[in-house]
Amino acid sequence: MTQPETKTAETTNSNDDYVVGVDIGGTKILAAVIDAEGTIKSQSKTGTKAKQEVDQVIDRIARCIRRAIKRSGLETSQVRAIGMGCAGTLDPDTGLVILAVNLGWSNVPLRAKLEERMGIPTFIDNDVNVGTLGEAVLGAGKGVKDLVGIFVGTGIGGGIILDGQLFHGANKLAGEVGHMIVKAGGPRCGCGNRGCLEAVASRTAITRQLRKAILKEGKKSILPKLNGGNLDMIRGGALAKAVTRGDKLTTKIMRRTEKYLGMGIASIVNFLSPQMIVLGGGVIEAMGSEFIDAVHKVTLKYALPNTMNDFQIVKAKLGDEAVIMGGSVLARRMLEKEPLEEKIDEA
Amino acid sequence: MTQPETKTAETTNSNDDYVVGVDIGGTKILAAVIDAEGTIKSQSKTGTKAKQEVDQVIDRIARCIRRAIKRSGLETSQVRAIGMGCAGTLDPDTGLVILAVNLGWSNVPLRAKLEERMGIPTFIDNDVNVGTLGEAVLGAGKGVKDLVGIFVGTGIGGGIILDGQLFHGANKLAGEVGHMIVKAGGPRCGCGNRGCLEAVASRTAITRQLRKAILKEGKKSILPKLNGGNLDMIRGGALAKAVTRGDKLTTKIMRRTEKYLGMGIASIVNFLSPQMIVLGGGVIEAMGSEFIDAVHKVTLKYALPNTMNDFQIVKAKLGDEAVIMGGSVLARRMLEKEPLEEKIDEA
Repeated sequence: MTQPETKTAETTNSNDDYVVGVDIGGTKILAAVIDAEGTIKSQSKTGTKAKQEVDQVIDRIARCIRRAIKRSGLETSQVRAIGMGCAGTLDPDTGLVILAVNLGWSNVPLRAKLEERMGIPTFIDNDVNVGTLGEAVLGAGKGVKDLVGIFVGTGIGGGIILDGQLFHGANKLAGEVGHMIVKAGGPRCGCGNRGCLEAVASRTAITRQLRKAILKEGKKSILPKLNGGNLDMIRGGALAKAVTRGDKLTTKIMRRTEKYLGMGIASIVNFLSPQMIVLGGGVIEAMGSEFIDAVHKVTLKYALPNTMNDFQIVKAKLGDEAVIMGGSVLARRMLEKEPLEEKIDEA
Repeated sequence: MTQPETKTAETTNSNDDYVVGVDIGGTKILAAVIDAEGTIKSQSKTGTKAKQEVDQVIDRIARCIRRAIKRSGLETSQVRAIGMGCAGTLDPDTGLVILAVNLGWSNVPLRAKLEERMGIPTFIDNDVNVGTLGEAVLGAGKGVKDLVGIFVGTGIGGGIILDGQLFHGANKLAGEVGHMIVKAGGPRCGCGNRGCLEAVASRTAITRQLRKAILKEGKKSILPKLNGGNLDMIRGGALAKAVTRGDKLTTKIMRRTEKYLGMGIASIVNFLSPQMIVLGGGVIEAMGSEFIDAVHKVTLKYALPNTMNDFQIVKAKLGDEAVIMGGSVLARRMLEKEPLEEKIDEA
């Protein structure tokens, strides 16, 4: 076959240019073989079983990757690199996971342990950063240089892309949108403080408000029925259905959620003036574009004049594949910075 | 005299390497001739008289610059460039002042009008951005790559330096720290919204709280006496004196101000993870290092673990000279980007 003469790592379309993207979360591991155009050739999924020993969990990650490669029909030696997004606080330069509460890990040299098992150059970053990179390069933010990804689920995470690159900041922890304070003295957050965006606009915050209104104040709502008869951690789908069916309590709480999200985004717009916010995560996926439009209106109200020119708030496109897709981008970009030859020399 | 063989625009020490830095505010204009080491050779100050016609005010700016040059003993032709910081919303690329409420200007091509009068390459940026650049290169932030400048006075302004450069964002309006929302539903801000940092921690916010407590609630305080018998816009010096003398009301309100500033900074730390915050402006200058230490403690409480490693909050060093010093840095940097020859070709 003939190949195009000019090519870059991100646009090459060649049958032998594959990397693996991996998403390591507290409950599941997802691995996929992805080509240079961002097309998934094969994937594999497994439970994390985070309660097992660290090395056992890392063995599971390696097995999941090998299975995805096998399904693609490739040999492991044909995979150029692995790019992983991992929940928690980590150092992308050293590949050390400093603290991952969901995994029960502290100071785990994930990159080194995976490279040892797989013999392939491996790169890691925080899962929300990697998801944001995926959206920026292969998803909703294609062609946008400066954007912020905000993912609203059980918590609220974020990632910053400046000049097309992930921005990590001095302590490599930039992007913690969920812990920007929007309501001083407000509800207690999982981080121990009060009034964080996560404490007023995450699924956890929504659940807390619904539980209080229904269980303590006796407010009526069809929500418990839609959520499988309980109010433990309310699914996005149940929220969306309750609003669609005109449930007053849920609608009121979701209006409040829109307001806080809009304020948080306005803080970002006034401070950083990005071109775009990509909104993703379970709550956003379920609530859809009307919810995003409402958030946009609140942002417009709280943003300073002229900060919203050509500014967009868009829904994430990649869904559950954001991290594996972003992992493939991370792998390719890092390969460009760190040529394979050097990695082989080291080995 | 002999000159060092290797030199850059910022470190050259030569008797014929001068630029002019200018600070254009709503009440005064300050211009200074500054050498390559950031030493002020001469300066000149004049009232802005913002109520005059735009062209008259710009004539005043030009006269102020000429007077500063004359005082330095140089000829105008010996000045390589002019760098100006101007209050308001402006486009540094086109040199257009879009809106400057304090000056009563909208859509004023300040750069072009000044170049026409002076015949010297001229560069402009927002005054707080320019002040932050001054602190980053010649003041408290020397050697720091990523920092945020926060200036607490009548309002709260800010500037962002990333990788040693001013960061403007998509709409060139980045850095509006004062309009990050920290207290949803809180006091009304000058911008029309509620709960902005400026609405809870600026001199305006402090004055509002003191007026309410003293005039409406009849609380006792030595503050009015220290502020010249009135409570119109309370000076930083009066606040500092009242706290030093143990005035309970003022102390309580300043503790609250520390709290909100610390929360605002924690939001920035969690979101952007800068290396340093430079705190300046009238309130900070007057209150001094104990106040900054208290703000630091609040930030530490609200920042996520590991975000504060090697992170510093420092007091601005350049005081009223931050904008003229930053103007000199702006002028030198823009000259490097836009060689003088091109400017002459255009003329």
